[in-house]
Amino acid sequence: SSEILTPEKGLVGRVIFGIKCMVLGLVWKIWDFLKKAWDLAIDDPKKVIHCLKVGIALTVVSLFYYMRPLYEGVGRNAMWAVMTVVVVFESTVGATIYKSLNRVTGTFLAGALALGIHWIASQSGEKFEPIIMGASIFLLASATTFSRFIPSVKARFDYGALIFILTFSLVSVSGYRVEKLLTMAYHRLSTIIIGTSFCIFISMLVCPVWAGEKLHLLAAQNLDKLANSLQACVALYFNDDNDDMAIDHKNLQGYKCVLNSKATEDSMANFARWEPAHGRFNFQHPWRQYLKIGASIRRCACCVEALNTCLSSENQAPEHLKKQLSNICLRVGSSCSSATKELAMTLKTMKKSAKTEFSIEELRSSVKDLQKELKSLPQSLVNQLHTAKAQQSAENEQKERVSTSTAVSLVEIIPLASFASLLIEVSVRIEGIAFAVDELAKLAD
Amino acid sequence: SSEILTPEKGLVGRVIFGIKCMVLGLVWKIWDFLKKAWDLAIDDPKKVIHCLKVGIALTVVSLFYYMRPLYEGVGRNAMWAVMTVVVVFESTVGATIYKSLNRVTGTFLAGALALGIHWIASQSGEKFEPIIMGASIFLLASATTFSRFIPSVKARFDYGALIFILTFSLVSVSGYRVEKLLTMAYHRLSTIIIGTSFCIFISMLVCPVWAGEKLHLLAAQNLDKLANSLQACVALYFNDDNDDMAIDHKNLQGYKCVLNSKATEDSMANFARWEPAHGRFNFQHPWRQYLKIGASIRRCACCVEALNTCLSSENQAPEHLKKQLSNICLRVGSSCSSATKELAMTLKTMKKSAKTEFSIEELRSSVKDLQKELKSLPQSLVNQLHTAKAQQSAENEQKERVSTSTAVSLVEIIPLASFASLLIEVSVRIEGIAFAVDELAKLAD
Repeated sequence: SSEILTPEKGLVGRVIFGIKCMVLGLVWKIWDFLKKAWDLAIDDPKKVIHCLKVGIALTVVSLFYYMRPLYEGVGRNAMWAVMTVVVVFESTVGATIYKSLNRVTGTFLAGALALGIHWIASQSGEKFEPIIMGASIFLLASATTFSRFIPSVKARFDYGALIFILTFSLVSVSGYRVEKLLTMAYHRLSTIIIGTSFCIFISMLVCPVWAGEKLHLLAAQNLDKLANSLQACVALYFNDDNDDMAIDHKNLQGYKCVLNSKATEDSMANFARWEPAHGRFNFQHPWRQYLKIGASIRRCACCVEALNTCLSSENQAPEHLKKQLSNICLRVGSSCSSATKELAMTLKTMKKSAKTEFSIEELRSSVKDLQKELKSLPQSLVNQLHTAKAQQSAENEQKERVSTSTAVSLVEIIPLASFASLLIEVSVRIEGIAFAVDELAKLAD
Repeated sequence: SSEILTPEKGLVGRVIFGIKCMVLGLVWKIWDFLKKAWDLAIDDPKKVIHCLKVGIALTVVSLFYYMRPLYEGVGRNAMWAVMTVVVVFESTVGATIYKSLNRVTGTFLAGALALGIHWIASQSGEKFEPIIMGASIFLLASATTFSRFIPSVKARFDYGALIFILTFSLVSVSGYRVEKLLTMAYHRLSTIIIGTSFCIFISMLVCPVWAGEKLHLLAAQNLDKLANSLQACVALYFNDDNDDMAIDHKNLQGYKCVLNSKATEDSMANFARWEPAHGRFNFQHPWRQYLKIGASIRRCACCVEALNTCLSSENQAPEHLKKQLSNICLRVGSSCSSATKELAMTLKTMKKSAKTEFSIEELRSSVKDLQKELKSLPQSLVNQLHTAKAQQSAENEQKERVSTSTAVSLVEIIPLASFASLLIEVSVRIEGIAFAVDELAKLAD
């Protein structure tokens, strides 16, 4: 078959070669896709478990339709149970409960309203009936759609509003034809309730994934990432060879994940508030406080981002200057990162240890030392120059020299000084995180 | 009625008072809610138009059911047209097209597959039929649910995958009972196609809201906000009274909006790629480039955030030092903000003007001047001190004094120096934005 590959074969050969390439390309693409999927599955087995749960739930609900007695009772409306399972089953318990409650409430309210309006319409004669129905659909659909734009409604009842419009128009439209509207409504509501409660049970009992726990872990993970990122950044800036493990590109870039986590946090916090008490969390655990913690973590990550650009900046302080501040900056960096890790641990275990207080104290004292060092830095530089120059120059030349040398070293010092002051700002923001974590502890009590 | 308010009335009075308070509270809450909704409507009339469009579309589709000829043809499946309109009609054209195409494709694929499997199952005897059906539902539902976790599938086909599972299980389940499966499938697909094409037409023809245009405007708005925020921040730092208009709290906080815009941008870019050519945008306009622009804008906003904290920092440079750099920093600030505004204009009009180049050049030269000024700053400070001290102290004391005074002023200078170097970093990032905008212009050609 290697003959086919030679271009001498002409048009036919080329076409075959082209098709071969296409097929190989397709196979490779599919292989790549499967590999990605496999990596995803290995990376987070909970996702696979969720998929199996959906499969089981759907198969079991289908039995409702297969079994004759249930078929007789619920009739064609059994498909609403299947539909409910497909649409309502989400990967976290909170999201499933949110969708379930919204679906049931939306269906019930819309059904009751539609029945009422249908009755009024049927009383007002054949001419007015379609007009009343059409006008009510128009008004309610517009108003409900508008309410979905209001942030507070969107956060809690977005899906319910959608289901409200859906059910209202379906009942109104089918009400025009089908006579046994009440029995239909009863059947539909009962199948939906069966479907939703089934979903809630499966999602809560079989390997549950709690949105609240996810939010909780996300905050702790973000703190860890921030700590590693910070440590790697400071170590890299001062070329600290002792800390080879820390200078890892993946660690260094960790803050980027943190900066982009807002959307996930918001949705998790929205779902978490629907969840019952689980694990160490009570019902109505102060989930909103996690958003505040998240915001303060992102504020800190923003500063770490600025710190990171000092690494790649064109203006770098000369090595001999860096060395002067190297020790104290590395100390501040490591105390920042250990305080952040302590906070992550406090969050994870939900227990405030003496170690947290201690690490914050250590952070404060190291920052004070850095500020002191910064103050004495020009003095020591000038002194160095004094002793160096004194030996080689005359008394009256020295004055001139000192000011020139200080001038040069001040410009050279600026990148280092801004690195140091960014580091101090990072420490201030870490205290902000500590404050938010403290507040959470108070609220959760 | 004021008598009721007195506490002497006892229990009954208190109960009435409590009820009154509750009712008043409720009325106030509803009033507040309505006021918020009204503000929202005034703020963005396009949202109101969208709601009216949904109302009209739903009312018109309901006519499909009212009219007898259509009822005879399409039968009970007409409700699928209503359902489609409710679920598919989104506020932007791109989102509507995305959902429509996903819905039609998902329904068609799942329907065809379900029919095939149903035929195989019916050939294999009564015993195996439910087993084959159950196994296929389980496998397909699990696999498709898993595929929704894969980022590339989630971005483009999330809704399609949901509809695939939904249709497959509905057809499988109903196939067990209903004989005329093919006609039903045909009717259902045709009603869905009617519903979706209706939605697409209405959303495209009646006051269309394009996701692409929204994304485009969002980027330009973010640039404007950033420019205002930057200008306000620099002006406030140097207490520049000439720029009273700029020092507006709302302007100052503008960068926060920018930092939080990632989620909106992502979804808009996802929807925009489904949109046909409109206005100045071709089909397959390089929408992904807007994400890059957005990322570079956020990088810059991050830096502006760091700049902002210099305003509230405890360590402030003394006023006389600030004055030394005030003019040049204000110049850099205003050239940064005018360059950003120029870039916003370039984005808005999609035309690169000579002014943009010019403003970037001006930015570069002002930054160079700032760097020069920073270099000469210590020199000029020392010179000032020289002349001041020389008059009052002896020749041999002076040496000592100079170094001490320089030491003090260096520590005092650090906040100012880091403000200046952050400002320089902002200018570097603005050039990053300019680069991304340039790339967009090249790609769009």
